[in-house]
Amino acid sequence: MSIRTQYLTLLHDLVALPSVSAKHESLPETAKLIADALRGLGAEVLYDDTYFAPFIIGKLTSNVPQAPTVIIYNHYDVQPAEPLDLWDSDPWQLTEKDGKLYGRGVDDDKGNLTARLTAVAEYLSEHNNQLPINITFIIEGSEETSSQHLDDYLAKYQQHLSGDLVIWESGGKNANEEVEIFGGNKGIVTFDVSATTAGHDLHSSLAAVVDSAAWRLTQALATLYDENGHITVAGFYDDVTPPNSREIQLVSALPLTHDALVAQHEITAPLITDKTGDDLKSILYFSPTLNIEGIESGYVGEGVKTVLPAKASAKLEARLVPGMDPEKTLLQIKQHFQNRGFSDILVTKTLGQPGYRSDMSDPQILRVIDVTAHYYKAQPVVIPTSPGTGPMYYIHEALGAPIASLGIGYANTNDHAPNENIRLDDYNQHIDVIKALIRSYEK
Amino acid sequence: MSIRTQYLTLLHDLVALPSVSAKHESLPETAKLIADALRGLGAEVLYDDTYFAPFIIGKLTSNVPQAPTVIIYNHYDVQPAEPLDLWDSDPWQLTEKDGKLYGRGVDDDKGNLTARLTAVAEYLSEHNNQLPINITFIIEGSEETSSQHLDDYLAKYQQHLSGDLVIWESGGKNANEEVEIFGGNKGIVTFDVSATTAGHDLHSSLAAVVDSAAWRLTQALATLYDENGHITVAGFYDDVTPPNSREIQLVSALPLTHDALVAQHEITAPLITDKTGDDLKSILYFSPTLNIEGIESGYVGEGVKTVLPAKASAKLEARLVPGMDPEKTLLQIKQHFQNRGFSDILVTKTLGQPGYRSDMSDPQILRVIDVTAHYYKAQPVVIPTSPGTGPMYYIHEALGAPIASLGIGYANTNDHAPNENIRLDDYNQHIDVIKALIRSYEK
Repeated sequence: MSIRTQYLTLLHDLVALPSVSAKHESLPETAKLIADALRGLGAEVLYDDTYFAPFIIGKLTSNVPQAPTVIIYNHYDVQPAEPLDLWDSDPWQLTEKDGKLYGRGVDDDKGNLTARLTAVAEYLSEHNNQLPINITFIIEGSEETSSQHLDDYLAKYQQHLSGDLVIWESGGKNANEEVEIFGGNKGIVTFDVSATTAGHDLHSSLAAVVDSAAWRLTQALATLYDENGHITVAGFYDDVTPPNSREIQLVSALPLTHDALVAQHEITAPLITDKTGDDLKSILYFSPTLNIEGIESGYVGEGVKTVLPAKASAKLEARLVPGMDPEKTLLQIKQHFQNRGFSDILVTKTLGQPGYRSDMSDPQILRVIDVTAHYYKAQPVVIPTSPGTGPMYYIHEALGAPIASLGIGYANTNDHAPNENIRLDDYNQHIDVIKALIRSYEK
Repeated sequence: MSIRTQYLTLLHDLVALPSVSAKHESLPETAKLIADALRGLGAEVLYDDTYFAPFIIGKLTSNVPQAPTVIIYNHYDVQPAEPLDLWDSDPWQLTEKDGKLYGRGVDDDKGNLTARLTAVAEYLSEHNNQLPINITFIIEGSEETSSQHLDDYLAKYQQHLSGDLVIWESGGKNANEEVEIFGGNKGIVTFDVSATTAGHDLHSSLAAVVDSAAWRLTQALATLYDENGHITVAGFYDDVTPPNSREIQLVSALPLTHDALVAQHEITAPLITDKTGDDLKSILYFSPTLNIEGIESGYVGEGVKTVLPAKASAKLEARLVPGMDPEKTLLQIKQHFQNRGFSDILVTKTLGQPGYRSDMSDPQILRVIDVTAHYYKAQPVVIPTSPGTGPMYYIHEALGAPIASLGIGYANTNDHAPNENIRLDDYNQHIDVIKALIRSYEK
């Protein structure tokens, strides 16, 4: 069995474990499989299950004195697979079709992990088990739920965690098939919002005089946005760190367009911003968001039920940019409901973490860009920050090293959605790039 | 076995059948049990299952020439039992506890039916199988879903359906333990409202620039009401038939208060109207409503899922007063969304029927009031209309007779909600009142 096949088998086994951190499912089983794989590579493995999602460090040490250290960060937890009826194959069964691999977590993030394990294993096999650099794998299991306890684990293993460059968990190609390299991500604060208007659901004839929880909640939520898509929470934008000139220039050079976004996601409603060009991109990368992840109230089964719902609840999230504090943002939202006459609306924090952006002029970041450009024979698209969230802030606080995000994905990877998939060609190319990066450190 | 016990056993068997018309469940089985009971009483039974919910007529003919005819209208279908976890006993198992009977449909409407069967059976047993009046039972199985096809059935059996008085399916005592008699009910139009913003759920990082279906729907719904609880749909109130002076006087005399309403339903939010006295009552009885029965979008499971929902849907209903037309009201609501910039919001009608109010000065209505007052040794509370919905409009159109609604319920009956229940004392009193009503026609 080739090394690539060996780690594709591991990917199959990892996808079969529904390691949904939001449900605390299958986390230790998945972590143990990865720890075993790292030991198989010859790594020194630190395995810690103090918290619900075990944390793994895998250290491979170079025989070169004073060799630099590259940190590879990945996570083994995944998003829930629901809605299950929209999947064309079993989300927990790695399924190959037309040169693609399907399954929950195949891109985010189990496939990225096995690609990197493959790269290191092949390099070792081709170089008499010697590395020109130290490589430290940092693998957590709560990335999809705001990296709970990652800061605790990082503090505990601080002495093992110095490095010169961090290779981030994910990345890939855009809709124009250009390779992208990211240097940051947004933060997040997630929270539940609920309304209760009576001791129990009422006969809906009382709607003439009794407010329902469904009305209270929808009316409260509607006040968070104005008709231009601007978030109305007082102070919400106050602490936003504006982009610097290199960041503005990098984002300005990005190929994303309004029309491409609409076409890619089959968007049928007007965009929040209908501006084209730099404003659209600037908002996507440098502005915070406020999103309803889900809402429920009353009867949603078959047919009709004439009920006045006494309870209504929603899950919300704000994506934060550097400068914003999760706790402060949450407080502003609570204050907003108070000020708008919705003091009965209950707001409960679930998760939170700050955002981070790398210095995109750092020599190690420039090395990653150079290796990538050389391999693909084309300049990668360099983006100062992902519009998504990740724990870069904590990793950077712990390591001090700049962070580069690249990976196996493409425009229709469907992360967090049904039919998550990767293309085998992208997967193999990423293995080659990581090998080339290791080779770039050879004297 | 006494006659009362015999029909309590029938009630037990009826509750055990989950005859939820919204789900088309157990309807023929339930209808057959009732048809058999009517045959056991000696009635001529017409049983018609042309549509999904069979329709039953049971005719008992007096030997008195030119005897008047009293119609007894009931239904055997029930509301769904969800949410099941809020029931203290199995909703489909008649459960006796502390002088009360629990189960879905025990008040609405199976218990009212068995009480009336008991009254007729006892009267016949005590009067050598002779009645001073003709009694016609009209029993349908789609009352909880807007009495679909009741108009078709009534048209088909028009020659069997002349009468002088209609005894309605339900009623009971208020929170002050006073017996209530209703003469009307509201109409209704129910409809689904949905938003679709993309071809599939998106990663929520796109919330910066892409509108989510959850925002579209909550913002669209929020425009239907102003902050004073006034429905903002243009023309919504135009066709409302205002109450006449007797109706105003009857409602003004009702004991309902703001504080009693709040206490009874453990209401924790402000009432839509915070006026006390006649205004509150006037709105409850004579104003139309607009209610969210249920709403759903995105992820509502455990934990957090950072998803931008592409679909959101809600079930809404408007309760209508006489003068209002279900189709016209629905059109006004569709037009409202168009006018407010929500032309992407899809509105789909599910059910509809007009409202009706009896002439509360009719001699047959006055007879019911008199018999009731005599039995309870107290004046009943006479109410021109229920704030709830029923098919009185269709029954009145078919029969031309005035309608009086009285029954076995009390203030905490929990119709349409978990732990629906009746008190055995109320049940037995209603049997006695119906017997007294029959006796009132003796020469």
